[in-house]
Amino acid sequence: MDMSRTSSSGGARERLVVIGGDAAGMSAASQARRLRGPDELEIVAFERGHFTSYSACGIPYWVGGDVSERDQLIARTPEEHRERAIDLRMRTEVVEIDVAGARVRSRDLDSGAEEWTAYDKLVIATGARPVRPDLPGMDAPGVHGVQTLDDGQALLDTLAGTKGRRAVVVGAGYIGVEMAEALINRGYEVTVVNRGKEPMSTLDPDMGRLVHTAMEGLGITMVDDAEVTKVLTGDDGRVRAVATEDAEYPADVVVLGIGVRPETTLAEAAGLPLGEHGGLLTDLAMRVRGHTDIWAGGDCVEVLDLVSGRERHIALGTHANKHGQVIGSNVGGGYATFPGVVGTAVSKVCDLEIARTGLREKDALRAGLRFETVTIESTSRAGYYPGAALMTVKMLAERRTGRLLGVQIVGREGAAKRVDIAAVALTAGMTVEQMTALDLGYAPPFSPVWDPILVAARKAVTAVRNNTR
Amino acid sequence: MDMSRTSSSGGARERLVVIGGDAAGMSAASQARRLRGPDELEIVAFERGHFTSYSACGIPYWVGGDVSERDQLIARTPEEHRERAIDLRMRTEVVEIDVAGARVRSRDLDSGAEEWTAYDKLVIATGARPVRPDLPGMDAPGVHGVQTLDDGQALLDTLAGTKGRRAVVVGAGYIGVEMAEALINRGYEVTVVNRGKEPMSTLDPDMGRLVHTAMEGLGITMVDDAEVTKVLTGDDGRVRAVATEDAEYPADVVVLGIGVRPETTLAEAAGLPLGEHGGLLTDLAMRVRGHTDIWAGGDCVEVLDLVSGRERHIALGTHANKHGQVIGSNVGGGYATFPGVVGTAVSKVCDLEIARTGLREKDALRAGLRFETVTIESTSRAGYYPGAALMTVKMLAERRTGRLLGVQIVGREGAAKRVDIAAVALTAGMTVEQMTALDLGYAPPFSPVWDPILVAARKAVTAVRNNTR
Repeated sequence: MDMSRTSSSGGARERLVVIGGDAAGMSAASQARRLRGPDELEIVAFERGHFTSYSACGIPYWVGGDVSERDQLIARTPEEHRERAIDLRMRTEVVEIDVAGARVRSRDLDSGAEEWTAYDKLVIATGARPVRPDLPGMDAPGVHGVQTLDDGQALLDTLAGTKGRRAVVVGAGYIGVEMAEALINRGYEVTVVNRGKEPMSTLDPDMGRLVHTAMEGLGITMVDDAEVTKVLTGDDGRVRAVATEDAEYPADVVVLGIGVRPETTLAEAAGLPLGEHGGLLTDLAMRVRGHTDIWAGGDCVEVLDLVSGRERHIALGTHANKHGQVIGSNVGGGYATFPGVVGTAVSKVCDLEIARTGLREKDALRAGLRFETVTIESTSRAGYYPGAALMTVKMLAERRTGRLLGVQIVGREGAAKRVDIAAVALTAGMTVEQMTALDLGYAPPFSPVWDPILVAARKAVTAVRNNTR
Repeated sequence: MDMSRTSSSGGARERLVVIGGDAAGMSAASQARRLRGPDELEIVAFERGHFTSYSACGIPYWVGGDVSERDQLIARTPEEHRERAIDLRMRTEVVEIDVAGARVRSRDLDSGAEEWTAYDKLVIATGARPVRPDLPGMDAPGVHGVQTLDDGQALLDTLAGTKGRRAVVVGAGYIGVEMAEALINRGYEVTVVNRGKEPMSTLDPDMGRLVHTAMEGLGITMVDDAEVTKVLTGDDGRVRAVATEDAEYPADVVVLGIGVRPETTLAEAAGLPLGEHGGLLTDLAMRVRGHTDIWAGGDCVEVLDLVSGRERHIALGTHANKHGQVIGSNVGGGYATFPGVVGTAVSKVCDLEIARTGLREKDALRAGLRFETVTIESTSRAGYYPGAALMTVKMLAERRTGRLLGVQIVGREGAAKRVDIAAVALTAGMTVEQMTALDLGYAPPFSPVWDPILVAARKAVTAVRNNTR
C-alpha cells in the first residue's frame, strides 16, 4: 500500500489517477502527458479489461467482416501508452473512490489483490454499461451484448460455432440497426425486435417509419411495438428463440442492442453528483461539480444540450475523445472547455443512411418550445447526374423566431453527413432564414443547385412566416 | 412598338421585364409570379439563345457522357414558363436599356425586327461571357468554349466528327479540370495547358500542387506556367495544335476553360454602376445601387465576400438561383436579401475531389489580415473502415483572434462536401477553437472519430496559441 506522494528534484511531483482505459481516460492521460513530463506529473491509469483506447463504435463492422482484425480497432495498446510514461494497470478494477482521503482502492482481477493509490488529480472515465433486461434466459449461451471488444470476440466465437442462420437483434437503436447490417453481411436471416412503435427512436416516428420500410426492403424482418418477455433455450441450454407477449422468434443467436446507461456505480458510492439520466455532472471544463481535483468524461457523464439547455446522456466516441482532450489540457495546466452538444448522430444499415441533430418533436415540446416542422424530398446530387439518390429531410424551426431546432435525414449515399451543415448552424444559433443563404458547395456530382438542407430551410421559412400566432 | 402600360380591373397592372432566361432571370420571374398573379403583374422575359433555365454546370457531364441527353440539363422549358403566364421572347436580344425612359429595346435575332418595351420593374440577368483570348487561330474549327448548351452541342458535334484522339484543354480552373475529365471519359489523350504555376488557382499553390500530381496520376498531361500564343491550323483550316512560347501541343480538339467575365455591356452603356471586376453592383436586396426599380443577379453581378468584406465576381449556378429567388420575392412584394458569399466551391476530376471556401493566403493578405496556416492529412472514414480515403485539409485562421478564414480540401470520395462545415462556420464567424468542439456526425463508415475538419481546427488552435505576436 503506497500512500506517499513522490517528489522530483524539480519540486512537488503530482500524481494523476485515471479510472478507465478507453477513449476519454486515455485521451486525458495522453494530453496531460503532452503538456507535463514525467518529472512533473506521474500518471497512473486503471483498466479492468484487456484493451485500451479502442473503437467500440467499430465492433459492428468487425463482427460483420468489414474490418478483418480486432487489432485494427485499437488506436493505442497498453504498451504504447506505457512508452509514453503512463503507468497503466490492466485487468485492475477500481472498486472505491475515497474522496475525503483523495485515494482509490483497486483490485487486481487476476490475483484478487487490493491496494490504495493516492491521487492529486482524478479522472473518472468509467464509461457506460449496456442495458440488459432482467428476463429469463438472458444469460443463456448465444445471447450477446456488443459493448466491448471482449463482447465482440465472444459473439464472433458464437457465430463461428453456430450452424443455424437465424439471428434476432433486440433493440432498433444505433447498435441494433448496425448489428442487423453486420449479421446480414454474414449471411444471417435477421429479425429486429423493438419495443418502440418504429425503429430508431432517436428520430421522430415519421422518419423512423422510413427506416422501418427501408430495412424491410433490405430483407430484415422488423417487429415493432414488441416487448421481449423471455429468451427460450433448447435442451442444450443454448438460445433457441426470443419470446414477446404475442409471438416467438426462432434464434440461433441473439444480439442485445438496447442501449447503455452511464457506469457511475463508483461515483455514486463516493457521493459525487449525478444527473437525472444517472451520469456524472461536470462544469464546462469537465470538472465534477463541487470538486476541485476530480474530472469526468466520456460515456459516464451527462452533457449540456445546447439547443434545449438541458443535460443529456449520449454515449459516443467522438464526445469521449473531446472530453479527454479537454480534461488532459486542464489537468496539464492548460485551458479548454467542452461547451456542449447539439445531439448529432449518423448511422447506416447497408446502403441506408440515417442522421439526426438537434431536437426531435418531443424534445422540443419537453423544452417548452413551439415549432414548425417541414419534410422534403431531394437528391444527393443533381437530379440528372448518375447516382443521384433520394433523401428525406425533416426540419424543425422555432415558431416566431425561426431558429433552427433540429434536422433528421433518411436516405442513401450522400445523405448522412449533410447533417453536419445543420449541426454547425445549430451551434451558431442560426435561423432557417439565415440558412437559406448558406454558401454550400455546389457542383452536379455533389449536390443539386439547392442543397437538400437549403430546400428544407426554404420550406421551413415559409412555414414560420405563415404561422404568425 | 408598345409603350403603353396595361391595366386590369383590379387596379394598375405593373410590368416586370427580365433580361436573360437562365437561372437568375427565370428564378426571379417564377418567384414573382408565385407572389403576384397575371392580373397584378405582367412578366416579359427576353432570352437571346434557344434555351431557358438550364444547368450550365452540367455541360461537362453531358459532354463526358455521364448525362445522356441535353434536355436533362433543362430545368424548365420556354413552354413551361409560358404556362405560368410569363411572356417569354426567345431568340430575342435586348440591345439597349433606356433607364430614363424605363424601357428596353429588343431585337428578334431571326427577323432582325426591333421594338421598345416599357417596364415598371427591370431585372438584369445577362450572365457571363467566357474569356476568349484574342490570338491567331482562336476561331478555327475545332476550338470550343463550353458556356452554353449551344456550345456543348457544337463540341459534341466536333467530337463525333473527329478521328484523332488528342485534346488540349486551355485553362485549369473548374471548367478546365471538369472538361479534362469529360474528355478522358470519352477516350481522349488530354493535355491541360495552364498559365498558372499550378492548376486550380482558386486554391493556394501548395494545394494546387496536389491537384497537379493527382491529375498526372489520372493520365492527364499537365503543362503549367505556360501562356498559349496561338492555335495552329492544318491545311483543312481545322485546329492541329496549340502553341505556347516554348512548345506545340498537337490537338484534334481544343476546349477553352479560361473563365468568364460578367456580361455587363448593356448595363455599362446604360450608365449602371459596375464594380472593379466588371460586375453590376447591387444592395443586399439585389437592387442595382442607386436605382429603385432595377434589380440584377446571377453571373453579371458582384457579390459581397463576407470574409474579406470586399466585392467579388463568382459565376456559379447556386448563387444565381438564390439571387433570382431574392429578386422575385422583392419584386413580388415580399422581402428577402442575399447577404453575401464565403466563396465555397467544389469540383472533381474523375475520383479526385477538390473544395475550397473562404480566403486563400493571397486573399487574406490583400484584405490586410494576418493569419496562421496549417495543413493536415486525414481520412474520409475511420482508418480501419473499408474505403477510407486520404484527404489533405488546409486551414487559415486569423492571428490573435483565431477566427476561421478559409479551408481548402483535396482528396478522394467524401472529401469535397466536408467543406460545407467550414462554410457554415465562416458564415457564423466562428474561431478555430470554437470549431474544435463542433458536434459533427461520427460513425466509422462516415468519419474518423475526429473529423478531418476538426483535426485541422485543433492544429490551427495550436498555431494561433503559439504565435502571440
